[in-house]
Amino acid sequence: MTRSPQIAGESDLIDRYLRPLAGRGSLDLRDDVALIQPEPGTELVVTTDMVVENVDFFPDDPPEAIASRALRVNISDLVAKGAEPFAFVMALGLGSDRDEAWVGRFTAGLARDIGRYGADLVGGDLSRAGTTTIVITAFGRVPAGRLVGRHGAQPGDVVFVSGTIGDSALGLRLRRGELMPQPEVSHLHLLRRFLTPEPRFELIGVVRKHASASMDVSDGLAADLARLCEASEVTAVVEMSRVPLSPSARAFVEVDSALWQVILGGGEDYEILCTVPASDAEAFASGAAAAGVPCAAIGTIAAGDAAPVFVAADGKPLGIERPGHDHFAAD
Amino acid sequence: MTRSPQIAGESDLIDRYLRPLAGRGSLDLRDDVALIQPEPGTELVVTTDMVVENVDFFPDDPPEAIASRALRVNISDLVAKGAEPFAFVMALGLGSDRDEAWVGRFTAGLARDIGRYGADLVGGDLSRAGTTTIVITAFGRVPAGRLVGRHGAQPGDVVFVSGTIGDSALGLRLRRGELMPQPEVSHLHLLRRFLTPEPRFELIGVVRKHASASMDVSDGLAADLARLCEASEVTAVVEMSRVPLSPSARAFVEVDSALWQVILGGGEDYEILCTVPASDAEAFASGAAAAGVPCAAIGTIAAGDAAPVFVAADGKPLGIERPGHDHFAAD
Repeated sequence: MTRSPQIAGESDLIDRYLRPLAGRGSLDLRDDVALIQPEPGTELVVTTDMVVENVDFFPDDPPEAIASRALRVNISDLVAKGAEPFAFVMALGLGSDRDEAWVGRFTAGLARDIGRYGADLVGGDLSRAGTTTIVITAFGRVPAGRLVGRHGAQPGDVVFVSGTIGDSALGLRLRRGELMPQPEVSHLHLLRRFLTPEPRFELIGVVRKHASASMDVSDGLAADLARLCEASEVTAVVEMSRVPLSPSARAFVEVDSALWQVILGGGEDYEILCTVPASDAEAFASGAAAAGVPCAAIGTIAAGDAAPVFVAADGKPLGIERPGHDHFAAD
Repeated sequence: MTRSPQIAGESDLIDRYLRPLAGRGSLDLRDDVALIQPEPGTELVVTTDMVVENVDFFPDDPPEAIASRALRVNISDLVAKGAEPFAFVMALGLGSDRDEAWVGRFTAGLARDIGRYGADLVGGDLSRAGTTTIVITAFGRVPAGRLVGRHGAQPGDVVFVSGTIGDSALGLRLRRGELMPQPEVSHLHLLRRFLTPEPRFELIGVVRKHASASMDVSDGLAADLARLCEASEVTAVVEMSRVPLSPSARAFVEVDSALWQVILGGGEDYEILCTVPASDAEAFASGAAAAGVPCAAIGTIAAGDAAPVFVAADGKPLGIERPGHDHFAAD
């Protein structure tokens, strides 16, 4: 009902920027639908994520990074389930301030990630929007019955987390000017971790092989572990000293230990949180290391339905003030 | 990054309003992904549409109607391809002015349509957004190799269109106050046709059985027929006297024949436009009538690559001023 005249027509934009990205099943983006043919013996895994200007990214973030974020938050969901991404559809709603140059940079970023993750663009929709909004629905596959859900954790399983935790949440607070910069700390590392998620694509195989339950850390380690435990009807004990921190995050938390709340509650890590039977723990850790992604054993699953406990170095449990990212909670 | 405090938390909203709608493959909306298992011998058909406040609907439209629109524009795409809808995922971005009561009415509308079309909610994402935005990605199935695309029309095929054309475009202009109301004409019919698309669900079978090419009319009959012809590398001749109009639309066009431009160029009809080999035309028409949806033979496919011609009652071709709805064209 509203129109903006300063941009090429819808079909021109599709011709110039989207059709070159179209893959198998897309019908060359010339029809109204895409065709997906899962291989026999596999199940199709579907995830969808909405990425919104001023909610999930800043208006002046590089368009390439916004595209990466929109795709990668979905790739991360698939990977954490042991599913191999292969295709996606994208609804792109352009705010009235976005011009063709922005679309060009956005699709260039998308093209790079398509090559990186092997997920083809097979369909989509292009629209004007109040503020720029991207919704990608991504498709992955697992051998039938082999999806790694949230619900399989058993007492005695080891809790693993990949990479480092809290960088993105600290990066967001630096970006917002809510965190006092520290001398001799790499802020760039933290800002980058917020700007561009790095899904743990390399872990698909070891997660599928060894994990009893798995998810990605998107709403904060504390909240996501609580959800995994709830789905599995168990609880967990985590030793905070074993939660892996980057040198930058460690430097911040050493100055102000209250930042543990940000690290464990802040979200957008896109690391893998999974549980592994104790008998497989060594094989999982070495498989992950061989794939180039260090994974830390941070705790143990236990029987019970209490919230997971995060035990500090002094042996006392940490009270988590804000249990994870919630789009609708007051900040 | 922005938060609005006046609404229940994300997981409360999911518990109260979305989980009751969740179907098979949804993992009860308790995991990060959905599982879809197409039946052997079928292909999975995927479509995605973005529906945006102030672009595709008015802020004060009934929430139930907004939900119906968001789902039905996708159902319409599937139906037109001869695909049977069975599941969908939904990203719902709520503008800051939307409260829990709105969500309740929105999901009530969605629940009604889930029952009507047999498409289960299997996953989604809930977010705050600048303006309310809904992206549904819907899944249908066809027997392998039986998708009816845009590309199969042959010279000599009969061009059919279901229902009536132009009502929605006239309804939108009435709603905007751009069209002078006519005495003794049902404006309500036109306004309703704009407010709530009615996908031609009943035609899935006859389209799959008889149509050589098919699509739904979403961007205007003239533009959509041009696209079908382009994909099929043919042209078409349409007799305007045979384009089916509702009594309300007919009354408007009899007063002002310039409204043919709105009727053929306006879009949002969500009728089926398809081509049928001449030998099947009678069987198609009677099959459609038996399914309760009248379909009119409006013209013929011809060899050539010119734009389709719309011939008026006086034998002269109509010049189409604005070839269809384009989100990015000046209005």
